[in-house]
Amino acid sequence: MPLGGVDEIGSNMTLIKGPQEDIIIDCGFLFPYEESFDINYLIPNLSSLDPARTKSIIITHGHEDHIGGLSHLLELIPHLTVYVTPFTHQLIEKKLAEKKIRFQYQIYRPDQEIAFADVNITPIQVNHSIPETNGLIIRTKNLSWGALYISDFKVDLKSQHEAPMNLKLISDLLRPCHKTVFFIDSTNVISDGKTPSENELQHDLAEIIQRPEKRIFLTLFASNIHRLNKIVELANANDRKVIILGRSLRTYLEAARESGHTEINLEDLYTPEQAKNLNSKVLVLLSGCQGDFHSALRRFSFGEDPHFKPTYGDLVVFSSKVIPGNEKKIYRIYNKLTQFGADVITASDYLIHASGHPGKADLKLLLEAFRPHFYFPIHGESYMLKKHQEFILANFPEVKVNVFHNYQEAILSDEEILINHHPVMEPILIHGLGLEIERSQISQRRKLATQGAVFISYNRKNNGLEISTLGLPILVESRLEQLKKNLSQMLLGDLQHRAESYIKDQLKISTRQYFNHFLGYKPVTEVHLN
Amino acid sequence: MPLGGVDEIGSNMTLIKGPQEDIIIDCGFLFPYEESFDINYLIPNLSSLDPARTKSIIITHGHEDHIGGLSHLLELIPHLTVYVTPFTHQLIEKKLAEKKIRFQYQIYRPDQEIAFADVNITPIQVNHSIPETNGLIIRTKNLSWGALYISDFKVDLKSQHEAPMNLKLISDLLRPCHKTVFFIDSTNVISDGKTPSENELQHDLAEIIQRPEKRIFLTLFASNIHRLNKIVELANANDRKVIILGRSLRTYLEAARESGHTEINLEDLYTPEQAKNLNSKVLVLLSGCQGDFHSALRRFSFGEDPHFKPTYGDLVVFSSKVIPGNEKKIYRIYNKLTQFGADVITASDYLIHASGHPGKADLKLLLEAFRPHFYFPIHGESYMLKKHQEFILANFPEVKVNVFHNYQEAILSDEEILINHHPVMEPILIHGLGLEIERSQISQRRKLATQGAVFISYNRKNNGLEISTLGLPILVESRLEQLKKNLSQMLLGDLQHRAESYIKDQLKISTRQYFNHFLGYKPVTEVHLN
Repeated sequence: MPLGGVDEIGSNMTLIKGPQEDIIIDCGFLFPYEESFDINYLIPNLSSLDPARTKSIIITHGHEDHIGGLSHLLELIPHLTVYVTPFTHQLIEKKLAEKKIRFQYQIYRPDQEIAFADVNITPIQVNHSIPETNGLIIRTKNLSWGALYISDFKVDLKSQHEAPMNLKLISDLLRPCHKTVFFIDSTNVISDGKTPSENELQHDLAEIIQRPEKRIFLTLFASNIHRLNKIVELANANDRKVIILGRSLRTYLEAARESGHTEINLEDLYTPEQAKNLNSKVLVLLSGCQGDFHSALRRFSFGEDPHFKPTYGDLVVFSSKVIPGNEKKIYRIYNKLTQFGADVITASDYLIHASGHPGKADLKLLLEAFRPHFYFPIHGESYMLKKHQEFILANFPEVKVNVFHNYQEAILSDEEILINHHPVMEPILIHGLGLEIERSQISQRRKLATQGAVFISYNRKNNGLEISTLGLPILVESRLEQLKKNLSQMLLGDLQHRAESYIKDQLKISTRQYFNHFLGYKPVTEVHLN
Repeated sequence: MPLGGVDEIGSNMTLIKGPQEDIIIDCGFLFPYEESFDINYLIPNLSSLDPARTKSIIITHGHEDHIGGLSHLLELIPHLTVYVTPFTHQLIEKKLAEKKIRFQYQIYRPDQEIAFADVNITPIQVNHSIPETNGLIIRTKNLSWGALYISDFKVDLKSQHEAPMNLKLISDLLRPCHKTVFFIDSTNVISDGKTPSENELQHDLAEIIQRPEKRIFLTLFASNIHRLNKIVELANANDRKVIILGRSLRTYLEAARESGHTEINLEDLYTPEQAKNLNSKVLVLLSGCQGDFHSALRRFSFGEDPHFKPTYGDLVVFSSKVIPGNEKKIYRIYNKLTQFGADVITASDYLIHASGHPGKADLKLLLEAFRPHFYFPIHGESYMLKKHQEFILANFPEVKVNVFHNYQEAILSDEEILINHHPVMEPILIHGLGLEIERSQISQRRKLATQGAVFISYNRKNNGLEISTLGLPILVESRLEQLKKNLSQMLLGDLQHRAESYIKDQLKISTRQYFNHFLGYKPVTEVHLN
């Protein structure tokens, strides 16, 4: 039963419900789809979990859409054991240490089966865009059912930094099972071809880093440790000093070093302070390839970094893609950099980014290696799930493909899969210091933002009336005297003898109408009587 | 001198400043780049215009980024003569009639020279995505200079619904000039190839409209009258009844009919009311292909249209592109439609949309027909202008390419072009009933949206203290008593005897700190004393 990650990209969380226990796979967060005013993230509604039946969570990999909700989950079920690989463990520990949350964990290794009460689970190393990503093979004790669950992967047959995904092992483990079912990534299903290998980027990255520009700035997803290693290697080979700007890059590199995925030692690198006066060629790596508001890239691009300002002759390289929804933020950065005189290079100029998700050709490779009886597209928006379903039906007509949704259970009976559904629960909005905020309050904020606010206080003793406005055009100031007169007149009449709530309502209605007349909208109005 | 449309896409407006008079080309609006809370649009700052020197404005075509600021301009300079073609005139008249603005106009025809005091201007019909789009050839009286100004075009050599752009005429008109300069569209310069002809879409559109689905819904840019004609023709040929949903489609079709660009008569079509009970196959055309909040498409996709609800077996066709920044709104619509069971087809499935702007191959065709001495990329963001410049420099090294910016003048001397700049003026934010709103007020709104608000009033006579909150998490309610106690204690002490502004400030600071402690941010706080 998915609690998140179906009909949406993000907040991945799935329950394996056995007769004896429930096992959780992942607990991620999601950035909200519609404007929600600094609300940091959404997490699945956890109130449907049964803490008495739930002892274990398996984390497939360290991306935030798989681990970002963990602190909230551990507050609710502190006794959980977190099954995790060494690199992912480092990431989680750094994150939870900030919030002073401790947790029990168990390190797992790919290909080594873990026995639970109702099922055995074998993690399978897959290729993605962060080290130590795993799919899961879940088999019932009597092998009546075998499932392959891979929420994030691509088939990178040319991978050099890690083994290519072991398609043979998957079919070896599933072959003995009576019935089989796949749960598979839909993120990139709109793409027809084969997702490029991370390895294919080396040619163009090398060409760029060899260029004569004294200063090259490069941004990428901070979790892509393999690419970071390759880029730093190329910088060293070209006598470019490497500088790191941004907390996120530092965190991932520390975790990578502590788990043996990189030789890069932050302590050996030049600090931005030192690098400023360096006469050598430099490569500055920046966090924030999505244009995030407080990122190193954005600060630099807007000329606000204390050590580096973009200028003529600088080269700024985006070894990344634009995640849908971030276009305006990122194009704004291209424009700012151009205005400062820098040259901008993106993945539409060179092959310097490869997705971590399967295109249609990748999915074909997987199904050619092993044809399951049943198939569920997961990890995608509704539109993508359906396109994924249509693609599998068209190419592998013998596979039964179903789309299911959050809070629907795929019940594995003897021969069939039944779909059963629980009431859908809205995800929780988290903001500020990790607090929940209600949807009604978000719409209140939307009203404040689009209509501004008026505050009115009336002192019944001395007829004192004060009016102030927030976020209204300045011309409004000149109209406040007239409003004050109108309201005073109302108050001096019959109104002052009525019930308090009635007076408040009347003042509110008149004020909103007064503004509506010349603004064309009614500001949020709050009235105090005392 | 551009006042808008350079370093941005939208609010196109350019001044031709001669010794005797200034002529305006276009006056458009722009949708703001960053979130600005229901602010409707931006227009160029008009205060640098000299009404005494300015008698004429030429409109190149009827898109909103070329005519959307006209009502504000005419309020400032009511005596302007608007040079316009018949279809564009219809569009402007409908728009200004709503605002009860009258204007003088002069109909112009392509290829017919218009004489002004300092220059002669010949409009040149070009291919774009709306009927009656023109480039301008501007020549000084003594032919010392000839300029080609085309802010929007593509080279559609296969065009059937209108003549292909007359490249020969352009070179014939410019050849006699001593020096020549181009000002050219950058919108689509990132695209390497040739922009497809509108004509090339017919095959796939026909295939789709022939499909067996009883109900086909199709959305497109409402101004693309040629495509609308073709689609309605295909529907008629396939016995599909056509229904129009959306004000914008109706307005453009009315203007097109009044100027002879379409046979479609809105009065002959089935109303949505009638069509509901129709047994025939239908084609429903909807406005709102960018997912706009109040559009017919959005209402339909969310199941909120009174006559049509999406369901299994429906086909919804997007004969359009996603304008950057609208991804989330549009993907949300794909997802909603999918959740209702409808099938979604977009321009990534079939060739059913063609841009109206030149790719690199289109630009080459233009420069191969006539090689100017000077060249300015216009109509694009900074990043695109630079890519455009690099492309022309690389392929036509004898052409001098300069990027200029809003409020910079390109001064045509005898042999050279000098760039001269005026202080940049920020564009004006227009909202509500066409009123200006200041940037400071927008940032006030941003604060209200991201931090919520607290309103406190204190009655010094009776120590009455009232506190209310807007847009804060509901748990805050339980903390208000404690805040009230804290503030009352402050007021009962020394504070009450201090100056009013000091009391207000102290109450504000304490309140913001109190909330910050458990929310992690400080709400906007307003205090009244009376």
